[in-house]
Formats: sequence, C-alpha cells, structure tokens
Amino acid sequence: MSKLPDPAESRQVDHAIEPLIYRRWSPRALSGEPISEEELLRLFEAARWAPSTYNEQEWRFLYAKRETPQWPAFFDLLMKDNQTWCENAAMLVVILAHKVFAKNGKPNPVHLFDCGSAFENLALQGTAMGLVVHGMAGFDFERAKRELKVPDDYDVAAMLAVGRPGDPENLPDKLREMEVPSGRRPVKDSIHEGPYESA
Amino acid sequence: MSKLPDPAESRQVDHAIEPLIYRRWSPRALSGEPISEEELLRLFEAARWAPSTYNEQEWRFLYAKRETPQWPAFFDLLMKDNQTWCENAAMLVVILAHKVFAKNGKPNPVHLFDCGSAFENLALQGTAMGLVVHGMAGFDFERAKRELKVPDDYDVAAMLAVGRPGDPENLPDKLREMEVPSGRRPVKDSIHEGPYESA
Repeated sequence: MSKLPDPAESRQVDHAIEPLIYRRWSPRALSGEPISEEELLRLFEAARWAPSTYNEQEWRFLYAKRETPQWPAFFDLLMKDNQTWCENAAMLVVILAHKVFAKNGKPNPVHLFDCGSAFENLALQGTAMGLVVHGMAGFDFERAKRELKVPDDYDVAAMLAVGRPGDPENLPDKLREMEVPSGRRPVKDSIHEGPYESA
Repeated sequence: MSKLPDPAESRQVDHAIEPLIYRRWSPRALSGEPISEEELLRLFEAARWAPSTYNEQEWRFLYAKRETPQWPAFFDLLMKDNQTWCENAAMLVVILAHKVFAKNGKPNPVHLFDCGSAFENLALQGTAMGLVVHGMAGFDFERAKRELKVPDDYDVAAMLAVGRPGDPENLPDKLREMEVPSGRRPVKDSIHEGPYESA
C-alpha cells in the first residue's frame, strides 16, 4: 500500500471542484513495480480525448519502460535530481508537439498549449487509477530532440514519469521533505476582469 | 434544457477512462444566459490546481462577462467565425503565460504547456457543471497583447468562451453541421516505444 499523503487532507480548496482535480499531485516516491500494457493504454487514451485547435491532436508520445533496451536513452536525458527518483519509474515519456497545421504547414500558435491539455488528461487518469504521473521540465530538451530523432516539425514539449506509488521513506532526505502536495496562490491572484493594466 | 448531443453516445473509447474526460467536448451552441460569480470562481479554482514546473503557476486569466464595459475589447479580438457563436457566450477569457521563472528570470520552456494543463482542468470542471467551455486559437494574438496591455514577460496563450448550452438549431447552417463531438485518431497512432525514427 502507498504511504503517500492524500492531497484532500491538506489542500485548501476555496470553491467546490471535482475531487479528481485536487487529488492529483506529483509525488516522487515510486515503488519500482511495472505497469501493465492496458494501464499504459488507458493513460494514453485519456490524453487522446483532449481538445486541440481544429482537432489537430498535435501530441505524440515517445515512451520507454524500465528494464527495456529503450530505457537508457530516455533516462539519460533527465537532470541528476530527477534521475534519483525516476530510477523507480515504470515508464518515461517524452511528449512531442507538432509545430504546424497538418492542412497547410503554417505555424500553430497553440501546439504546446494543446499538449499541456493532453498531459493533464493523462495525469488525471493516472490519479484515478492510483498511479503516479509526474511531469518534468528538468531534462535536456536539445539532447532529447537529437537522441530520439525528433523530426524538425516537432517540438519537444515535456517529459513525464509514470509509476506505482512507493514509500517516501525510501527517498533521499532532500526529496523526502518535498514529498507533500503543493499549495497554490489564491484564485483571486490569478484572475482579472478586463485588461491587465487595470489590475 | 440543452439539446446538445452527448459525446458518450457517439465517441468510440477504446480503453477504459474517466467518463468526465470523454464527455468533455467543445460545443458552439450557447444560450446567452449568464453564469454566476460562484460558477466563474469554481472554473478558475479548477485551473488553479493544475501542475506546473516548480509550481510556477504561469497562468493568468483576463476575462470579460457579456454586457459589461470590458466585453467589447475581448469580443473584438475574435475572428469573424468565432464571433458568430461567441455573441451568446457568458464570458470570454484570455489566458496569459508567464515566460520566465519567478526566481531567476530565465526562460521557462513549459510555460505554454503548463497553461494548457490549467485550461484542461477548467474545461473538465465546466463539463462537470453542465457548462460549455470552448478553447480558441482563432483570434488576433498580437492585438490581444496590445489591447489588453499584456506585460512583455507574458505570452498570450489562448482564449476560451464559457456559457450555458444552447439549441444547435439556432446556429448558422455551417456551424450547426459541425455541432457534433469530434472523434480522434486511434491511440496507437499517437504513441511509440523508443525514438521517433524507429516508428
């Protein structure tokens, strides 16, 4: 059983929202156990149904499961701090974003934004399944492009780690202290009626 | 009552996922009715709990409610096609994305991606509340920056319309024909084990 904290017990939610949304967080304590092929497909199925401009579905997901020949190429992209806990992940994923519209090759202004929506669907689905899904920007984007042979018309958008929850006690001291669901600034500080300058 | 189609009846979901995820779609038929202040806050509260790199929360939301002095500045940003149905929206939102890290001012490579996650939370919350949430790239990004006095360290990420579902019969012919939940390519076409080139 996971010994991870439940965000529902610590997060201060000020307006009623879906529990799935505030129960999602980004733990680092992973058990090292694999996930099944069907679990993998359910996660990507959730990403599949994200919205995108003109239904472009700009997302592509490259992945590697631990203890496979593909793993080292993905793992080596991560910064040291992420490697310390990702060594117990079941899967690493690199999200690619198609930069141009399929119909005319013109630049798509929301390709990264849309991939963020797809990622959030995946993260919420993982939460519903009791899995850890942890997005990361702490990796070498340029190296990812090169080593994973990403075509020129795709951007590397982000990485993520997926796995089964583990025991925070097994994390290094520094990371164990961080293993609590993070808070947020109040919603009033993120919204404004009218133009920015009138804030 | 809404006469909008239910995506659960038409979408082919291949692997079991949360109903909320496949029930979300992007209708254009809006009733013209307002939303309450509490509904507005619940939507932004959902966005609040999205993940972001180093918990940066890069998102800021500028909004205008219909029949307020702020409305025209937002509405005028939209392309003609979007104006035809957005005139019945209850609220228009412009999402801004902070380009640099708060702690050191260095470029944040995932600021737009993270805003996409926040948007998807908002869209799913809207679905749960029976509201329409429809993201848009069809507007003038440069003009938005200028007219809404967006600071230089923010990008304009996307717009969205929020409202109560209306009757598709009231849409212009062209839009009425499009008023069905869209499909997606199969999940297998979006994922690949290992580097891209081996696809």
